[in-house]
Amino acid sequence: MRKVVLGLGMSLDGYIARPDGSVDFLFMPKDYSMGPFFKTVDVAVMGRKTLEAGLKMTGGKFDNYGIKCYVMSRSEPPGERDGYEITGKTPEALVSELRKQPGKIIWMMGGGELARDFLKADLIDGMELGIVPVLIGEGIPMFPAGFPQREFKLVENKAYSKGLLVLKYERVRKKAGSKK
Amino acid sequence: MRKVVLGLGMSLDGYIARPDGSVDFLFMPKDYSMGPFFKTVDVAVMGRKTLEAGLKMTGGKFDNYGIKCYVMSRSEPPGERDGYEITGKTPEALVSELRKQPGKIIWMMGGGELARDFLKADLIDGMELGIVPVLIGEGIPMFPAGFPQREFKLVENKAYSKGLLVLKYERVRKKAGSKK
Repeated sequence: MRKVVLGLGMSLDGYIARPDGSVDFLFMPKDYSMGPFFKTVDVAVMGRKTLEAGLKMTGGKFDNYGIKCYVMSRSEPPGERDGYEITGKTPEALVSELRKQPGKIIWMMGGGELARDFLKADLIDGMELGIVPVLIGEGIPMFPAGFPQREFKLVENKAYSKGLLVLKYERVRKKAGSKK
Repeated sequence: MRKVVLGLGMSLDGYIARPDGSVDFLFMPKDYSMGPFFKTVDVAVMGRKTLEAGLKMTGGKFDNYGIKCYVMSRSEPPGERDGYEITGKTPEALVSELRKQPGKIIWMMGGGELARDFLKADLIDGMELGIVPVLIGEGIPMFPAGFPQREFKLVENKAYSKGLLVLKYERVRKKAGSKK
């Protein structure tokens, strides 16, 4: 089954952006590449606010790097745009539809509010988190409160230069009827 | 100079306790020991709420393991108690006083509100964080918002069994007049 992986960079105090949406505190050291992750992905899903923050940073240019991008919005009219598709579907409906098609990993790019919706619906199968060694003190949280407890298994823990820490987790779901 | 180290366990979404103060989600695997850390410490500092949560868990018994414990409270009358000392001093005043005496590391045990006060006053020189592989979805945050940005250096990242991740950071302070 195609997996949904939440993949994001965040501060050590759990923020994906400053209160104004800027992400100047995040960095990508020379010895880390997202290439291997990109190769495992063929669909990306993000929230409308994440799209807008991204467009602001690039001056309105959207590059999907050949990955099919869905932007989830309850307010924008659904349909194809330049490089992405707006959808009004629920996370459950979109993921269920994508899982019916053969393909690679579905990348949940954020932001936090959409991550919460995905966690509520228990749609997150894995996480790949890049943690920068700074406490920014305030911002937009990666994991805003308001979803049920979710257990994971630590799969990889690797440090890169400048203290970037990349953590990989896999969702552990207890089988119905099992004791633990 | 004696260092102040923030040492705590937390969930992957940054909580040190559930909303009711319980910490059942935290665990200490067999292959991890706090012994080496304890040996480097001779003073512990905690907030009143952390003390109360601890006393609740142990049924009112307080064991300081031979470490001098300060409990910071603006409401309780200062003075010696059974195993700890209540102080009404500010974090700055207490740390400044302790730093005048020779000794080992000062362990900041939490909770989050006191950690924020210490971070505001830039008193945290290092962190030793134990991160358990679970998102609990709501609780008492390790790093509540409201302090200025603080840079750290990643010193150690080590995984133990059951996915406990222990991260060690050192505070990086830019020297006045330096360009970066």
